[in-house]
Amino acid sequence: MGTFQGKILEVNLTSGTIGESMVDKDILRKYIGGSGLAAKLFFDCVSLDVEPLSPDNVMYVMAGPLGGTAMPGGSRFSVCAKSPLTTMWGESSCGGTFAAWLRSAGYDGIAIKGASAKPVCLVIQDGKAEIKDAADLWGKGTYDTIDTLREQNGGKTKASVLSIGQAGENQVRYAAIANEKRDFLGRTGMGAVMGSKKLKAIVAIGTGKVDAAVPDVFAEKRKQFTENAKGHFIVDIVKAGGTNGALDIGAMMGDLPGKNWVMGDMSAYGPKIGGGVLNSEQFLTGTDQCHGCLVNCKRVVKKENGSYPLKGTAGPEYEGVASFGSLLMIDDMAAVIKMNEMCNDYGMDVISCGSTIAMVMDCVEQGIIGSGDTDGVEFKWGNIDAVIKTIENIANRQGFGDTLAEGSKRAAEKIGKNASDYAVEVKGMEVPMHDPRAFHSMGLSYATNIRGACHTNDLNYSAEQGILVWPEIGINGGYDQKSSVGKAELTVISQNLGQVINSVPICYLLMSVITSAELVELTNAASGFDYTLEELMTCGERIWMLKRGMNNLMGITAADDTLPKQILTPPPDGAAAGSVPDLKLMLKEFYEIRKLESNGRPGKEKLESLGLGDLAAKL
Amino acid sequence: MGTFQGKILEVNLTSGTIGESMVDKDILRKYIGGSGLAAKLFFDCVSLDVEPLSPDNVMYVMAGPLGGTAMPGGSRFSVCAKSPLTTMWGESSCGGTFAAWLRSAGYDGIAIKGASAKPVCLVIQDGKAEIKDAADLWGKGTYDTIDTLREQNGGKTKASVLSIGQAGENQVRYAAIANEKRDFLGRTGMGAVMGSKKLKAIVAIGTGKVDAAVPDVFAEKRKQFTENAKGHFIVDIVKAGGTNGALDIGAMMGDLPGKNWVMGDMSAYGPKIGGGVLNSEQFLTGTDQCHGCLVNCKRVVKKENGSYPLKGTAGPEYEGVASFGSLLMIDDMAAVIKMNEMCNDYGMDVISCGSTIAMVMDCVEQGIIGSGDTDGVEFKWGNIDAVIKTIENIANRQGFGDTLAEGSKRAAEKIGKNASDYAVEVKGMEVPMHDPRAFHSMGLSYATNIRGACHTNDLNYSAEQGILVWPEIGINGGYDQKSSVGKAELTVISQNLGQVINSVPICYLLMSVITSAELVELTNAASGFDYTLEELMTCGERIWMLKRGMNNLMGITAADDTLPKQILTPPPDGAAAGSVPDLKLMLKEFYEIRKLESNGRPGKEKLESLGLGDLAAKL
Repeated sequence: MGTFQGKILEVNLTSGTIGESMVDKDILRKYIGGSGLAAKLFFDCVSLDVEPLSPDNVMYVMAGPLGGTAMPGGSRFSVCAKSPLTTMWGESSCGGTFAAWLRSAGYDGIAIKGASAKPVCLVIQDGKAEIKDAADLWGKGTYDTIDTLREQNGGKTKASVLSIGQAGENQVRYAAIANEKRDFLGRTGMGAVMGSKKLKAIVAIGTGKVDAAVPDVFAEKRKQFTENAKGHFIVDIVKAGGTNGALDIGAMMGDLPGKNWVMGDMSAYGPKIGGGVLNSEQFLTGTDQCHGCLVNCKRVVKKENGSYPLKGTAGPEYEGVASFGSLLMIDDMAAVIKMNEMCNDYGMDVISCGSTIAMVMDCVEQGIIGSGDTDGVEFKWGNIDAVIKTIENIANRQGFGDTLAEGSKRAAEKIGKNASDYAVEVKGMEVPMHDPRAFHSMGLSYATNIRGACHTNDLNYSAEQGILVWPEIGINGGYDQKSSVGKAELTVISQNLGQVINSVPICYLLMSVITSAELVELTNAASGFDYTLEELMTCGERIWMLKRGMNNLMGITAADDTLPKQILTPPPDGAAAGSVPDLKLMLKEFYEIRKLESNGRPGKEKLESLGLGDLAAKL
Repeated sequence: MGTFQGKILEVNLTSGTIGESMVDKDILRKYIGGSGLAAKLFFDCVSLDVEPLSPDNVMYVMAGPLGGTAMPGGSRFSVCAKSPLTTMWGESSCGGTFAAWLRSAGYDGIAIKGASAKPVCLVIQDGKAEIKDAADLWGKGTYDTIDTLREQNGGKTKASVLSIGQAGENQVRYAAIANEKRDFLGRTGMGAVMGSKKLKAIVAIGTGKVDAAVPDVFAEKRKQFTENAKGHFIVDIVKAGGTNGALDIGAMMGDLPGKNWVMGDMSAYGPKIGGGVLNSEQFLTGTDQCHGCLVNCKRVVKKENGSYPLKGTAGPEYEGVASFGSLLMIDDMAAVIKMNEMCNDYGMDVISCGSTIAMVMDCVEQGIIGSGDTDGVEFKWGNIDAVIKTIENIANRQGFGDTLAEGSKRAAEKIGKNASDYAVEVKGMEVPMHDPRAFHSMGLSYATNIRGACHTNDLNYSAEQGILVWPEIGINGGYDQKSSVGKAELTVISQNLGQVINSVPICYLLMSVITSAELVELTNAASGFDYTLEELMTCGERIWMLKRGMNNLMGITAADDTLPKQILTPPPDGAAAGSVPDLKLMLKEFYEIRKLESNGRPGKEKLESLGLGDLAAKL
């Protein structure tokens, strides 16, 4: 209710107590909101050597100044904690409706400490919160859980549910959290953290009005932005095809990975699992969007499509299609949609899940393991039944699925021999579905991003595509995608901007639509601060450095800033044939620009200039 | 050789004489080059009531100041004359290599008057030209003709051939001209004009250096533009997928016509005939580009693809795929590639050919004609054999094909009843494959463009997509695609710009890459003039008005500024469901802004302000 001022609902599941806190205004200004503010609060109150799945880990659910306003792309939020997948800083963001109803219920964020002895859920309603028994929900998927909780809470329209599925309960290291049955916080295993706390779900019910600090200015700027956005080609394209609409052209550009990153030319998969297929009459029934948005990027699919009936109607995003499609050499769209939904319902990250399965298929092909090691499941490229069975086994930690529930890095270590060569991950997190051999700066993103191999903590992908050009901060456009020259400079700027937009927060897709002036004006009108673009970018750098320093304190060194072998091998054909990112060059420049020391830690002077003297002292 | 100065090779095929002329410098400045300069020369020396297929029609082949330089997209050229399809001003432009070698051979353009009594070809080599017997080539397709002429001329690499096929010889009203076996001047029937003159081919062989007027400035600006262009997303996307690469997303946006424009949602055709299919291993072997370019938009295809072996390797553009694919409800890519090549080899415009066949299929469905009227060919949606047989019949003017060789308008009039309702043409020219119901301004383009229904005499498509935003001339971006408000203003600006870029000329695709400042600087450095952007835009307006006035003198009135019935009927489903352009509104505003009188003619004051007093006097 009202404006964003860092009002945090403080929940202790061990003691069953509930309280509130307010964030200091100076901290708000410096860390904005979202995952930036969560990182600062975490750093100030959690021991960094905490075990991720222990009660001492603290999980933050955090909106930002734009959350719950009618700003398109502004209702994203982050869930943050130490990650069980990477054992360093973890965060996951999505759109959906939760930020809107949490803020409508009177809170800007939630801090969840401790762990309950028995399954519970947290129900927040208009300034009050209650921890309720959730024994009847334990063991259920996210879809049933959300249906039940909506029913129990009167099916209110002004409500939003976060829920884990069986994967979160079973602490699969890449367990996800569902927001309603359509948006998913996939990465870094925040669902496992929730599961370790026996917190099945969070319901936010709000009837209050969410305000900007300067409502009239905000309304005018928002209206103007929305009008402009309506005719923007990115909005038109994403509206028409969804995030999977560009799979076809991505494949032609060498961006779509195939066969655990070994293949080059995957363009034949466009007509099989691309935009036209997902948008065809066989599957599509409509589109949908996050709170306040206008893009309608979400694909609503039929429950009955002939081959694999579904429980719900949320179609896959590009990442899910690639992770279960081309990466595993599966070209049956109905099967891919099914696998994606299974992950949604069990509550698992599609990228980590698909990638871990791809690693095993590769190990089988290489003769590293045989079917005797995999409970008889035939891990062969394109084997749909094996994948469907394995998703179930992972979520329930059954048999060999228990090994795979640990993620590709740990699973490969357990498999032994040279299995780790086929685990395509950085710092324990599986690589998303954009190929750095087609876009070199993505290689540096994956090697150095805050949460491991990740494409949504910077803007490199949009910058390399030339659809985000902000010369005012040094994203000048005109990048040669298959060159590594100048990419370190781009990456530093774009990572800092990435921290800003995960803190404001605003959707990555709309970053190709909004101007920097609009972003500053809207952030100011929403927050009440008078940021300049320069100050916002300094906030971004501060947040990046804080998270990096925390990662260092959790054990990350320069040796971890690397890329998996498969990504450093040139593709045999396709648009990126023969191309590999020059990681050595980019890392050298990156370290110089970032003022990182040879051990991978931020330099003291840099930290102090950003007001991070306390972090410098710990390092 | 040297710089562009309007050095015209004057050929009279009746008398067999060859001469040269130089264009006055003031005219060069005012009409730039390309189709603008050709229109001015035509206006000054041809009687506008000339019969298009008579010896008195004059055909101009015209390069521009950028032609033959290494400027990407700059080596386009135009072939112009009174059109046998529309009986008004006709022009067709393409890229390829001819402009480069013509200029290298010492000429900026060719004027071809009269008609030969027997088949001839024109061979131009380094400042000399010769009319040669071509009896042995008559009756051959463009592919064989080009092969033979290259062989006869020593297979020189610095040579380029223009040729007509059987369709041009037989004066099919939409006959095309091939430049080598890869680029085609399709629209308005320039191939028929060439055929009426018994001119089978033109060969240009040049070893001279093509210069810009200010070579060092040109070289520097060109280099800089090329560097920037390399990383531009439009270049990347077109390079990756070719012009057909966007068919998929176009279909999702409601842009792809189906079943003679009756269908709405054609998104299912993306996976059948879209970018991924054409770029798949089954068909693609490589890419190619026009002289001096870097985009590589051309698709090189396999001669053997299983179903329909080809003679050559030129893959279809988007327009060809849509015209023979979705428009006819054919989803077999191999068949579509074959039909496209048949048109290339016979020398026929793919849009007019596919559209005329679509009209007949619709007439059969409506019961207007039966198979008895079509020589037993079954004109049924999706009937591949019928289309292949009909393309052959049209090119050779055999049986019912002779009727269809007249174009959809005349053919529908001959068929009678209400067949004209199913002829999707404006002023006799068939509508290209972008749906005005998804992009309203395209409706005004089609209704008012200089050569009838045409998408390459303005920039509306790029402007509506938001990929060409030049606020400095009033293309402000942010257009609501399915609104007609403000589209007249856009169209006037974009048509004037269209005349500039067909005169400079530069490729439409690169107009989303180049800035207005770069265009002005490069045009100045190439031509030696000191244009401002404003003066260039005035040239564009002058050229548009001259061509419009000529059209009026050839019989065009306000009643001809209209759209076919199918386009004014809302699509039943898909992204443009229920949408139709408000043509009445747009036309009213267009007439006001253009200062057109109610009879459709430009006002005297406007013409005089543009230095077109002589045109005003004739009107």
